[in-house]
Amino acid sequence: MTDSSSRHHSSPRHHWSSRRVLITGGLGFVGSNLAHSLVAAGAEVTLLDARLPHLGSNPANIAGIEDDVTVAEADVRDADAVADCVADADLVYHCAAQNDRSYAGEHPSADLAINCEGTLNVLEAAKACDPSPRVVYTSSLAVYGRPTDLPVDESTPARPMDLYGAHKRTAEHYCRIYHEQHGVPTTVCRLANVYGPRAPTDTGYGVQGIFVATAVRDETITVFEPGTMQRDIIHVADVVDVLERMGTSEAVLGEEYVLGSGEGTTLGSLARTIVDVAGTGEVELVPWPEEWAKIDRGDVYCDPAKLRAALDWSPKIELETGLRETVEFYRDNRETYL
Amino acid sequence: MTDSSSRHHSSPRHHWSSRRVLITGGLGFVGSNLAHSLVAAGAEVTLLDARLPHLGSNPANIAGIEDDVTVAEADVRDADAVADCVADADLVYHCAAQNDRSYAGEHPSADLAINCEGTLNVLEAAKACDPSPRVVYTSSLAVYGRPTDLPVDESTPARPMDLYGAHKRTAEHYCRIYHEQHGVPTTVCRLANVYGPRAPTDTGYGVQGIFVATAVRDETITVFEPGTMQRDIIHVADVVDVLERMGTSEAVLGEEYVLGSGEGTTLGSLARTIVDVAGTGEVELVPWPEEWAKIDRGDVYCDPAKLRAALDWSPKIELETGLRETVEFYRDNRETYL
Repeated sequence: MTDSSSRHHSSPRHHWSSRRVLITGGLGFVGSNLAHSLVAAGAEVTLLDARLPHLGSNPANIAGIEDDVTVAEADVRDADAVADCVADADLVYHCAAQNDRSYAGEHPSADLAINCEGTLNVLEAAKACDPSPRVVYTSSLAVYGRPTDLPVDESTPARPMDLYGAHKRTAEHYCRIYHEQHGVPTTVCRLANVYGPRAPTDTGYGVQGIFVATAVRDETITVFEPGTMQRDIIHVADVVDVLERMGTSEAVLGEEYVLGSGEGTTLGSLARTIVDVAGTGEVELVPWPEEWAKIDRGDVYCDPAKLRAALDWSPKIELETGLRETVEFYRDNRETYL
Repeated sequence: MTDSSSRHHSSPRHHWSSRRVLITGGLGFVGSNLAHSLVAAGAEVTLLDARLPHLGSNPANIAGIEDDVTVAEADVRDADAVADCVADADLVYHCAAQNDRSYAGEHPSADLAINCEGTLNVLEAAKACDPSPRVVYTSSLAVYGRPTDLPVDESTPARPMDLYGAHKRTAEHYCRIYHEQHGVPTTVCRLANVYGPRAPTDTGYGVQGIFVATAVRDETITVFEPGTMQRDIIHVADVVDVLERMGTSEAVLGEEYVLGSGEGTTLGSLARTIVDVAGTGEVELVPWPEEWAKIDRGDVYCDPAKLRAALDWSPKIELETGLRETVEFYRDNRETYL
């Protein structure tokens, strides 16, 4: 497999040696890319994953490292299973989530259980350990709902517009509360629209995965007119870089960060770039579906200045370069991902 | 029983006649006081209550109106039972809650289920009705955690410091989301420290219930040194007045309000006033328990200017008058409440 996720590190890697890292949702998009990078760095990696359908969990995501990781097939809603895994970890990346906004609206209790109770289970387990492992939580810019001022940053009020966003926000509160009240070392990282290898191409991770898959299939990417809606698109390797830095920095404990490229990319431009680098597919602007107006998030992009300052970080991967590699990845792994 | 809850109305009362009102947590402190007032106004009142221990649910709270209300003994976590009751209502006051902050910390999942899933059940049921009944949700100033600027108002960022506050905040998001996304007419009302007849005297409703009960028992009220911590103390009849106005106002739909007296009362002064009006009990200042520092909320009071403007409302009951009547209520009903 083509793998761009472990190429771009500038942080020292030696301190990962034999560090015990638990990644919940470890067979998912972000979790598995993180796993590839941490295995390469020498960490002892355990992946907790329930293999729920339609959320990006995919055994193929750990192809090449399957013998180097431990997979615990368990659900974050299972407090005992979570406690067992957390007890053996120095560091927990809590990436497991129900990340489909539509599903959340149709199944409020399931979204609540996975995104809130699942996070409570992780934090309760961490609290019960002495010392508590670090917990890095991957949240979402969805906590801002439909922002009125752009770019959003950590001073922007959270105003989720759907249950998914509300529950991600609740889990963020949990992280801060367990840090303040119980000394669990937590960090919250609100992800923008992440793209790259191993993203699911059906649903869940915003438009960018669908766009790439459609172009690789040489089909037509449909973009709502006039194609000017902006999203903050960031490569998963840049996200993995941040998550690793968060796993070793003292400065980020108890803090919340937005994580994105810092730029708004229009969906029309994104689709055209994908078609250009793929050399296949085409772009069609279509009228807005009427029922979409209420659930549309409007333009969203963030200013990661706080993160840049705290971690001396900046995104490394140019959009066009990253998209080209992503297209290659899906072409090389067509049977598995398309 | 002495009852001050239906005396202070200035809003027109005729429009309650045969209006079907559901009060969740209707055997509790706020819910039952609201029930007394609405029965007097001619509403058809149903009380949904799980009669959970230690949360203020008390059959004695509806003494005098027990033949005028329907009691559905059911838990807000029971979606079907909630749906049945909501389907028969024009207006829902969602007062049922797990309101014990310590319990929430010890039983995170239970607090999540009662305060979040319970509210989801109410809103999902309301969404399923055509037309949807109005839903008025009684939240708490606990969503602000330990405020840094006083008084708090609707522009103050919610920063809950415990799971109870986090879950109340989540339920507030639900109310706004179901209003914006599904047209359910919701209003959120963040209560300050409510006192008055029918308050539980063991736990749950802040210090004021405990202080009154202690004085009536002619025991010693202990206040942490130096007794200057401020709370916003408001009489339940003033709260009931607001809740009733919210049940008939169009202006409040989709909105959030803080509801308090607008003044900070120090706990030392509150305790001394209670002892004065009771003529029994005494006040002792004691050192702060060390473990309290982390969970202390600091000073909290709110500015209800937005509510005053929206509902042409102001609190009517002077603290000393209200405390005197409350002391009388507990003396008259000593066997039931003390």
